[in-house]
Amino acid sequence: MSRFFSDKFKALTPYTPGEQPRERRYIKLNTNESPFPPSPRAVAAASEAAKNVQLYSDPTARALNEAMAALLGVEADEILFTNGSDEVLNFAFGAFCDDTCPAVFPDITYGFYPVFAEYNRVPYKVIPLKDDLTIDPADYYGGGHTVFIANPNAPTGIPLTRAQIEGILKANPDNVVVVDEAYVDFGAESSVPLMREYDNLLVTGTFSKSRSMAGARLGFGVGCKTLIQDLNTIKYATNPYNVNAMTMAAGVGALADEAYTRRNCRTVVQNREYTAEKLRAMGFELTDSRANFVFARHPKMDGGEIYRRLKERGILVRHFDAPRIDQFNRITIGTQDDMDALLAALKTISEELL
Amino acid sequence: MSRFFSDKFKALTPYTPGEQPRERRYIKLNTNESPFPPSPRAVAAASEAAKNVQLYSDPTARALNEAMAALLGVEADEILFTNGSDEVLNFAFGAFCDDTCPAVFPDITYGFYPVFAEYNRVPYKVIPLKDDLTIDPADYYGGGHTVFIANPNAPTGIPLTRAQIEGILKANPDNVVVVDEAYVDFGAESSVPLMREYDNLLVTGTFSKSRSMAGARLGFGVGCKTLIQDLNTIKYATNPYNVNAMTMAAGVGALADEAYTRRNCRTVVQNREYTAEKLRAMGFELTDSRANFVFARHPKMDGGEIYRRLKERGILVRHFDAPRIDQFNRITIGTQDDMDALLAALKTISEELL
Repeated sequence: MSRFFSDKFKALTPYTPGEQPRERRYIKLNTNESPFPPSPRAVAAASEAAKNVQLYSDPTARALNEAMAALLGVEADEILFTNGSDEVLNFAFGAFCDDTCPAVFPDITYGFYPVFAEYNRVPYKVIPLKDDLTIDPADYYGGGHTVFIANPNAPTGIPLTRAQIEGILKANPDNVVVVDEAYVDFGAESSVPLMREYDNLLVTGTFSKSRSMAGARLGFGVGCKTLIQDLNTIKYATNPYNVNAMTMAAGVGALADEAYTRRNCRTVVQNREYTAEKLRAMGFELTDSRANFVFARHPKMDGGEIYRRLKERGILVRHFDAPRIDQFNRITIGTQDDMDALLAALKTISEELL
Repeated sequence: MSRFFSDKFKALTPYTPGEQPRERRYIKLNTNESPFPPSPRAVAAASEAAKNVQLYSDPTARALNEAMAALLGVEADEILFTNGSDEVLNFAFGAFCDDTCPAVFPDITYGFYPVFAEYNRVPYKVIPLKDDLTIDPADYYGGGHTVFIANPNAPTGIPLTRAQIEGILKANPDNVVVVDEAYVDFGAESSVPLMREYDNLLVTGTFSKSRSMAGARLGFGVGCKTLIQDLNTIKYATNPYNVNAMTMAAGVGALADEAYTRRNCRTVVQNREYTAEKLRAMGFELTDSRANFVFARHPKMDGGEIYRRLKERGILVRHFDAPRIDQFNRITIGTQDDMDALLAALKTISEELL
C-alpha cells in the first residue's frame, strides 16, 4: 500500500480469483470454464474485427443488443452489455444500494458480492443458507434490502425455481432483486420472462460459461428500461467503450450459433450427471447442482487434502477455505476424458487415505 | 431513471463520447482514432487468441506487463494494464482522492475528469487555463490536491515539458500527480523517466491512439510499486479479468512491432504540420498541438457553423459547446487524403461564409 491510498479503501479486501498456474499443464477444473472452444462463428467474427480496432467500438453495442434481445424475447434497450458480468454486478451494487438500502445475499454464494459492496461502500447483510446449503426464499422477503441471488447458487450449484424467485420479487416491490444467472444454461430456470411483470427484477448473465467466452469478457444485465438506463448512467460515467470490438463481434457470432451452445450445454449436463453418479458411488456427498460444476465432500477425507493431492496429480479443483464449506471441493465439469482422469485420481487418493 | 436509483448518483452527469453515426459514411476526424490499421502482428495475435477464449485471460497480464516494462525501462510490477486508460483514470480518482484530498485539474481538459470525480464522489477543483489556453504549472504547486494533468492537454494539444511536470511533482511531495499521456507519442516528452525519483508520479497511457487499438480497449498506468499495488487493489475489487485475452495478445503483438508504431506516429506528425500550415494560410488560429489532432478557430467563422457544414459534407470533427472553446473545433489528423478532403471542404465553407 502506498502512503497516498485513500483511507476509504484501506480495509478493502479484494476478490481472489481461481489459480491460473503456468508452471505446468493442469487439467483445469477450478474456474468453471467451458471445456469446448468458442463457436467457429465467434472466432471468425472476432478475427475479422481485430483488423479494424483502430476505430472505437460501438458504445451502444447495438448489434449485440439486438441479437440478444431477439434471443431472449425482450427489447434491445432492456439489455446492457458489460466487460464480463462482474462489471454489471459492480454497477448494480453502486446503482441500487446505499445506506438507506443495504445489499443482502447468502453467507455462501459468489465470493465477489461482499467485495462489490465494500468497493461501493454500501452496507450489506448476509443470511445463512439452511443446513442443507439451500436458500430459503422467505428469508429474503421484504427486508428493505437490494437482494442479490445467484441462481443456481455458487458454489453449491443449487437452483431456485422461477416461482421461488417470483415470490422474492413480489415480497420486495420497492427494492431491486438481482438474479445472477451465470450458470443458468446448465439446467436451471431463467427468470428473464418475469421482467414483463416486475420492474424490480434485474437478471445478469455471462458468455463465460455456456458460450465458451470467459477470456473474451462479455456479460449482460436484463431488466426494465429504467433499470437499464440507471446502469447506463454508471457505464457512461466510468467507461463508455466498456466492451471491445473483438468481443462484441464474437458475441454476435456466438448468438448466431445457438445450436452449438445448446449442444455443449447438453454435453456438460451429461458429463455432470455421469460424474455425480460415480462420485456418489465412491462415497462422496454432493449438492444437487444444476451448474457446470459439482460441489462434493467425502465424510472420511479432508476437503483440503483432496484438493492438494489432486493438484499434485495435475488436476486443479477449487477449494474454499471458508466456514461451513471447507470440506467441499467445487469441481468444474470438463470433457468425458477430463472427468475420467479426475475419477481415476480420486480413486487413487481414496486408496491412500482410507 | 428508475425509482430504485440511489440518491448518491441522481445528479451524476455521464461523459458524452464523440458521435459514432452509422447512417452514412463519414471521414471520421472526431474521436482521435488512428487512420492506420493495427499492426499485422497485433491482428495475428488477437486472431490466434480468439480460438481459446473459453479460458479466462491472465489476471496479472504477465506477458503484456513484461513487454511494456522492457520498452519503458521499468519493472513489470510498476505497470497496471486496464480496459482502456479510462479504467486506470477512474481507479486513480477512487484510490487517491477523497474529502481530505480533492482532485484538481484544468477547466479545459479531458471532459471525463469531472465525471470520474463525481462517480467516485470525491470533491474537485478546476483551475482555469491561461488566456492562451496553456497550463501554468505553478497553479498546481502544493495545494494538497491530487493533480490530474493531460500531457499534451486535450483538446488543446499543448504539452508541458518534462521539467515543468517535475516542478509540479516537487511541489506536491505528499500528493499523487497523475500525468495522462494518451497523446504523448505525437511529439511531447513522456514523464515516465521521472518515476525513479518521484513516488508520487502516476503516468497513464493508452494503445488507442499511437498503436491503433481504440476498439481493443487497452490502457495502462506506470508508477512506483506501491501506487500500482493500490490500483491493483481496486482492480481486484471490481474486475480481476479486466483485460480480455484477445486484447492482451494484440497488445503484445503491437509491442513487438514498435517500428510500425513509430512510422505511423511520424506520418501523423507530418500530416499535422501540413494541415496546420494550410489552415493558418486560410486564416485559422491554431494552438501549438503536439497530439494527433489540431485545435482551430477562425476569427470570422462560427465554430459550431463550421462543425455543422463539415458534417453536411461528410466530414466529422469534434465541437465542444463549452465556455471559452466554443469557437474551436478539434480535428483529428488522418491520412493525407483525409486532410486534403478536410481542407477542400473548409475552402468551400469559407467561400460560403466569408
